[in-house]
Amino acid sequence: MNIENVKFDEKGLVPAIVQDAASKEVLTLAYMNKESLEKTLETKETWFYSRSRQELWHKGATSGNTQKVVELRYDCDQDAFLVLVEPQGPACHTGAYTCFNESVDQEQVNVKEDRFQIFSILEKVIAE
Amino acid sequence: MNIENVKFDEKGLVPAIVQDAASKEVLTLAYMNKESLEKTLETKETWFYSRSRQELWHKGATSGNTQKVVELRYDCDQDAFLVLVEPQGPACHTGAYTCFNESVDQEQVNVKEDRFQIFSILEKVIAE
Repeated sequence: MNIENVKFDEKGLVPAIVQDAASKEVLTLAYMNKESLEKTLETKETWFYSRSRQELWHKGATSGNTQKVVELRYDCDQDAFLVLVEPQGPACHTGAYTCFNESVDQEQVNVKEDRFQIFSILEKVIAE
Repeated sequence: MNIENVKFDEKGLVPAIVQDAASKEVLTLAYMNKESLEKTLETKETWFYSRSRQELWHKGATSGNTQKVVELRYDCDQDAFLVLVEPQGPACHTGAYTCFNESVDQEQVNVKEDRFQIFSILEKVIAE
């Protein structure tokens, strides 16, 4: 994939869905500019662009909760990324495992990082 | 959750990550406006706003590949949705199971809908 082909929006950003590679839970939706995409590819850790702080943001730089990039996928339109990661701690600034903690029906969702982990490990063992 | 609290962007849109509730694979990143969010809640099928066609879009209306909504989650900032679905066919307009088919490292990723399904079923049985 050529970074030049990525369709950044009018603000120079592309959405990046962060998914736990083991549990398959979606952790965060963040945004990357060209520089954060390059940094992510180079360091194999997630780098985003903070829209609120308007700056490059190395996830976990201050909290220690970095995310190791296992795989970086992109979609059919090349205007969205899916980043499969090994999280080194909570993804959410609230300290929660995932930012997607609330459901429209039930107020609080109990998303656990290990919910599918054993099956994921089992699946990998069988596949090998 | 009150729809009035959703932080739609300056175009009146909010990103919606569509995830297969069974396989946990991420299928699509689409966008919803207030009307499509209301339609999704009302019909329990996914409705989006097509940015290219600039119109309300009932996923599967023409192709038959609708998505039954199992759960609708939102994030800590209330500016992104995670829609867990039971897909009635391919999510991608290319006919692929997911729009996220290509990897930055390997050209083509083989994402299968049944990869984790048996483990998901097994997990549910154990949980019950």
